[in-house]
Amino acid sequence: MFKLFYSPGSCALASHIALEEAGAPYKTIRIDFNTGEQRSTDFLAINPKGRVPALVTERGILSETPAILLFIAQSFPKAGLAPLDDPFATAQLQAFNNYLCSTVHVAHAHGGRGSRWADEEASFADMKRKVPKTVRACFELIESEMFIGPWVLGETYSLCDPYLYTIASWLQRDSVDVTTLPKTHSLMRRIEARPAVRKVLADHFE
Amino acid sequence: MFKLFYSPGSCALASHIALEEAGAPYKTIRIDFNTGEQRSTDFLAINPKGRVPALVTERGILSETPAILLFIAQSFPKAGLAPLDDPFATAQLQAFNNYLCSTVHVAHAHGGRGSRWADEEASFADMKRKVPKTVRACFELIESEMFIGPWVLGETYSLCDPYLYTIASWLQRDSVDVTTLPKTHSLMRRIEARPAVRKVLADHFE
Repeated sequence: MFKLFYSPGSCALASHIALEEAGAPYKTIRIDFNTGEQRSTDFLAINPKGRVPALVTERGILSETPAILLFIAQSFPKAGLAPLDDPFATAQLQAFNNYLCSTVHVAHAHGGRGSRWADEEASFADMKRKVPKTVRACFELIESEMFIGPWVLGETYSLCDPYLYTIASWLQRDSVDVTTLPKTHSLMRRIEARPAVRKVLADHFE
Repeated sequence: MFKLFYSPGSCALASHIALEEAGAPYKTIRIDFNTGEQRSTDFLAINPKGRVPALVTERGILSETPAILLFIAQSFPKAGLAPLDDPFATAQLQAFNNYLCSTVHVAHAHGGRGSRWADEEASFADMKRKVPKTVRACFELIESEMFIGPWVLGETYSLCDPYLYTIASWLQRDSVDVTTLPKTHSLMRRIEARPAVRKVLADHFE
């Protein structure tokens, strides 16, 4: 039985969807970012980084979305969430998910988490002003260069899709109109039609 | 024959070391960041992100260090660069490398690349002032919580080591004294003693 520590609507949503779609035995434990629970002693003992997701397994605790996602796919290969028998295709999947974590998520984070990288209120405001431009540039690059369609990697749904969905669900907050990003917009609607995703979203948002 | 696009001393160093240690057939192509070659039409056709590393393979082009590193390990399994037969151990390796790309490299980048996330000179200066603190915090967390020793994952050298080495090689520029980080300091000296690494460093710095 896995335990997934998550916060509603955070990037942990991607791992949550993957667990559900893999048919993994798991339960979830909600961390309340509004009260700073991610910085509590109890949670830092789970993930010293003070971040979600954290996945508790029989072997130990994993963090970092791309690593957790690939671990879920490898643990439940019948779910077909990654092209595990093809190292090059797996690397393409990992490259996409790494772009999401190291560039797209980071661009978004400058809207509300400027204090990670600066100290002055004026800098936070400057960063926040730039978020619509930087996040849009990321998604335009994704649509023009990386997103094959109808799913990110082509005909087959993969770990890239719930992760892109998760970050795309922040676009409204980032003042980017998703209807101007046709591939992403279409992906969001198709993902939200998946029963596993509907179940997970109900846990996050209802 | 692989082709690795790199810039001297950039994060592409990690992939370069891994290719050399794997015994892979490869050649390198240097991109001159001083003249902005990474934004040239020719290079954007290789990697539309305008970043290094980019690895040209027979199947296509890969980017993003953690993805490239795992692909090299999977393509040359005899080199033993990753615990490929153990999905949990591989996930731990990937989690470490993902922390490097999404948090540590990003913390460093605020020293010289503030224009990625803000527009005002005052913001760039504010970000730059904070780099020694944020980068140090990352390395202290690595030493206290992630780095088993003597190599990152314990007794066995892995893909984590050249990647940590690469980012640690920026510590002086980030005004962090590596001699105050004993595990990292020791790792740097042991990595620099490896013949394959010496050969790669000569290409970058001589």
